[in-house]
Amino acid sequence: MSDNINYYEEQQCSTQWRAFLGAFSTEFCAQGDVQDLRAFMFKLGLRMAASFKLDGGATMRTLEASMNKIWRDLNWGWVQLNEEADSLIIEHNASPIKLAFGEQALEWSPALLEGVYTHWFESLGVDKALRLTQKGTALEQGRVIVFQLKKHTGEHAHFTRR
Amino acid sequence: MSDNINYYEEQQCSTQWRAFLGAFSTEFCAQGDVQDLRAFMFKLGLRMAASFKLDGGATMRTLEASMNKIWRDLNWGWVQLNEEADSLIIEHNASPIKLAFGEQALEWSPALLEGVYTHWFESLGVDKALRLTQKGTALEQGRVIVFQLKKHTGEHAHFTRR
Amino acid sequence: MSDNINYYEEQQCSTQWRAFLGAFSTEFCAQGDVQDLRAFMFKLGLRMAASFKLDGGATMRTLEASMNKIWRDLNWGWVQLNEEADSLIIEHNASPIKLAFGEQALEWSPALLEGVYTHWFESLGVDKALRLTQKGTALEQGRVIVFQLKKHTGEHAHFTRR
Amino acid sequence: MSDNINYYEEQQCSTQWRAFLGAFSTEFCAQGDVQDLRAFMFKLGLRMAASFKLDGGATMRTLEASMNKIWRDLNWGWVQLNEEADSLIIEHNASPIKLAFGEQALEWSPALLEGVYTHWFESLGVDKALRLTQKGTALEQGRVIVFQLKKHTGEHAHFTRR
Repeated sequence: MSDNINYYEEQQCSTQWRAFLGAFSTEFCAQGDVQDLRAFMFKLGLRMAASFKLDGGATMRTLEASMNKIWRDLNWGWVQLNEEADSLIIEHNASPIKLAFGEQALEWSPALLEGVYTHWFESLGVDKALRLTQKGTALEQGRVIVFQLKKHTGEHAHFTRR
Repeated sequence: MSDNINYYEEQQCSTQWRAFLGAFSTEFCAQGDVQDLRAFMFKLGLRMAASFKLDGGATMRTLEASMNKIWRDLNWGWVQLNEEADSLIIEHNASPIKLAFGEQALEWSPALLEGVYTHWFESLGVDKALRLTQKGTALEQGRVIVFQLKKHTGEHAHFTRR
Repeated sequence: MSDNINYYEEQQCSTQWRAFLGAFSTEFCAQGDVQDLRAFMFKLGLRMAASFKLDGGATMRTLEASMNKIWRDLNWGWVQLNEEADSLIIEHNASPIKLAFGEQALEWSPALLEGVYTHWFESLGVDKALRLTQKGTALEQGRVIVFQLKKHTGEHAHFTRR
Repeated sequence: MSDNINYYEEQQCSTQWRAFLGAFSTEFCAQGDVQDLRAFMFKLGLRMAASFKLDGGATMRTLEASMNKIWRDLNWGWVQLNEEADSLIIEHNASPIKLAFGEQALEWSPALLEGVYTHWFESLGVDKALRLTQKGTALEQGRVIVFQLKKHTGEHAHFTRR
């Protein structure tokens, strides 16, 4: 089972750009600290998100399906949205960013997805007090990356789009 | 983990030919019994194998690596060769044939791989008394297909290429 | 320019299935005459078409766009629909079938597209008196395949969907 | 014919990374002048080239074939090497960089290929006095990019590997 996952991961990242993305990662890494790298990837994520048309849908499940339609068309894995008491948990699985940018880049490469989700939730008009941040480091060898959409002040947040 | 496997399986089979292969499977199924379908797929496998250049190598491990180079370039999964007392076990993992021909076709579609391995071992000059056959049905929801290269008479077989 | 076309054609047909489709073409060819091969490919085309959801649209241009959306998603080339006095001309460009089934198969492989378009026009409810047939042989080294939707009796046909 | 080229160009650039590369291009463009952008892309090209194993071969034709093997495996187009009196002309066709980075980036994006070819010729041990530079701007709507390997001083150069 785990051998299959390794096999599929290797196959997932497009051969056409893998060498370029690896070169980008190495060069990029040599030029900045983690903070800067994350900031740049975050910006790329914001821009990337803007190039897709996200249909919000009426419920959390339709929103999730709408995001997964985009991710599946790109072969960028899949997302699960879970509402908790005071936050929304965004769990992104099977993204190709580990293979594209390398394992050593997992400290900063997930900021790309942080940018994408931030743009998407903003475009859906969520409460301005909410902020999306990565929760911990990439898990299960970079296969799961978790984000949290949460109110800064800790008050009860409203995820429903206005 | 198992969700990831499902995700990757869906992505693995080339979109370009999936509708054609699905149509082929349905039409084909309607025209013959399992015996005939297996015979036809076996022949396709023999022909398919002939279009690849297999480097045998000196050991079982180099032969396995050589097969996996071909499978990986096609994104057809990977193989493991295991020598047992009186036979060679060929375990093919993560093939795209379940998604291509459908789950209902798993009774006959693996004959394609049977044909490929038969051609490859013959081209390597294995003992003519050895025969390759599928061992049981496709396992783990079609993710593992096992073949056996074994002497008919049950005498000790020689896998070493002459 | 023509070198680029050759380059792109080679790249277009999915590596994953090219060896299988080549084997299928050779084996298939050995078993029947052109008439039978065309009949089988036509049936596969009918089935294949049924697996896509074609949005008809109000005009010939929206219908064309709708077909091209499907073809582009598969990387099967693109189509141009032209209304003539007594028929509709369907010109399919840049299909991968020459590379998939081989040049020698161009006598029968286009019947696959004949089946697809036949199913699509029937599903749109065109006049039952109209029939779709291939017009001549594949042109420009198999890069253009032309079909005609025309009334058998030669009376003026109505392409408008009922 | 030209419609086919447009069709194939659109299909060539991997969907998986196109949005990312477009975002990278826009963001990157906003941060530097053409000189800086070229310098960065050149560095990425050097690193990228290092990740491939180039077999030199004995003649200009085998070297060309060896480069084309790499480019074809990536679906990055194809190259033609032509020896002139005092220089070697490297003509790269059908690269995906126009679609990846956008037409407006053609002023600096070809520096990526400049880096790749520079690394390759250095790794083959060409005369240190030779330098590879882009010759003019990208031609035929970005479909052809020409480089020149030439001695600075204008003396007769030796392309033969030592």
